[in-house]
Amino acid sequence: METIKTLLNHKTIRNYKSDPIGQEVLDEILEAGFRASTTGNMQVYSVIVSKDPEKRKALCELHFGQKMVEQAPVILTFCADFNRFNKWCRQRDADPGYDNFLSFFTAAIDALLVAQNVAVAAEAHGLGICYLGTTTYQAGKLVDFFGLPEGVVPVTTLVVGYPAEDPDQVDRLPAEGLVHHETYRDYSSEDIDRIYRIKESLPLTASLIEENQLENLAQIFTVKRYTRKDNLHFSRLLLDVIHQQGFMNHD
Amino acid sequence: METIKTLLNHKTIRNYKSDPIGQEVLDEILEAGFRASTTGNMQVYSVIVSKDPEKRKALCELHFGQKMVEQAPVILTFCADFNRFNKWCRQRDADPGYDNFLSFFTAAIDALLVAQNVAVAAEAHGLGICYLGTTTYQAGKLVDFFGLPEGVVPVTTLVVGYPAEDPDQVDRLPAEGLVHHETYRDYSSEDIDRIYRIKESLPLTASLIEENQLENLAQIFTVKRYTRKDNLHFSRLLLDVIHQQGFMNHD
Repeated sequence: METIKTLLNHKTIRNYKSDPIGQEVLDEILEAGFRASTTGNMQVYSVIVSKDPEKRKALCELHFGQKMVEQAPVILTFCADFNRFNKWCRQRDADPGYDNFLSFFTAAIDALLVAQNVAVAAEAHGLGICYLGTTTYQAGKLVDFFGLPEGVVPVTTLVVGYPAEDPDQVDRLPAEGLVHHETYRDYSSEDIDRIYRIKESLPLTASLIEENQLENLAQIFTVKRYTRKDNLHFSRLLLDVIHQQGFMNHD
Repeated sequence: METIKTLLNHKTIRNYKSDPIGQEVLDEILEAGFRASTTGNMQVYSVIVSKDPEKRKALCELHFGQKMVEQAPVILTFCADFNRFNKWCRQRDADPGYDNFLSFFTAAIDALLVAQNVAVAAEAHGLGICYLGTTTYQAGKLVDFFGLPEGVVPVTTLVVGYPAEDPDQVDRLPAEGLVHHETYRDYSSEDIDRIYRIKESLPLTASLIEENQLENLAQIFTVKRYTRKDNLHFSRLLLDVIHQQGFMNHD
């Protein structure tokens, strides 16, 4: 089944050809995105297409200098967007009560389901994709960069283009470690050892530990990649952006 | 292209046959889900499979009595989950700094991308799906129901089963209303009228307005479906759950 194959064959691509994406292909993958489920059919999201090389260069800096942002022909920034819906309501004498956290989260869900549909559609067209986690770190700067009004918060970004590499597929945890039946079965220390065994025994893991001069893979995450200090810093910034964009009003 | 067709043909299904889903099919659609992109390959999510009829009956009540939860053979609850990762870190002498809002949001993104892959894979298998927005409203009650430990928050639910209906595909806003080029072009009142014209002129819209004795479709959203009062109430509850599950620590 082609669809299942597309999903199972997913690889993140970090090196892109400069070849442009045809407008028809881009339109089709966005259209496929917009068929994703959306709360109450409100479609409370927007997508910003960045193609202009100067703009991508500036975006590249905002995304911590990840070169693929400059290299790939299309960058798609997916935003939680109640601005359009609120304007519609006000223009129709309806009072929109969407200036709160639940509405932000609803819109974020909408935007993320669209993003994943776009990712799948892009891969079905032979394109490569990469999600940029830096979107939530830099949400405030992206608000300024794109000129996002109240009611709009960027939640994720997709780099899209033709792959200039063919990496091996990366590992995933065994499904039994991710699935629970009827209730949540908490993990024993034996479960944890078993679930992470394959990941920890990969040659890549050994070389990462060596390179970083740490004891194990978990420490690479906590000491190098996603530290408490950075997480607390970017948590504060992200909550501030959600507040600033008008999603934290209370009674 | 089959994949694009699958995406473009998406319909939400609200009536299901009681036919069970074969274990092989269920395993395959979950496996397809787990290939979705995940931040730093951390896979900070879990899926809870509900098949037991008694459990689904109870879940049905938690989801505001939506009958399909009882009717469909499989309910999948997707959770942001740092519990497993945190346990792994602690077992490896690594100090996990993932008790903050950024980590919650990262894990929520992970869970939502998996959910959408599962939805697409299910539809490729001829199954129907429906997302339950009530998941975020009832997150606290779902925490109790499933026995979710600290670090775990339910973010969305998929009803999955063989369709007992074949509804028409619902409308979507025109793509030009959802896409921005290079910068966010805010909407003029003419833009709003144009973007919502098709939706507002549907026969379904006319009958909804008649039925609800309101002036227009926007008021159906603000007065009936998603009211300010409900949104503020469920915002408070959701923020409390995020806090209670250990994702709101500060310096």
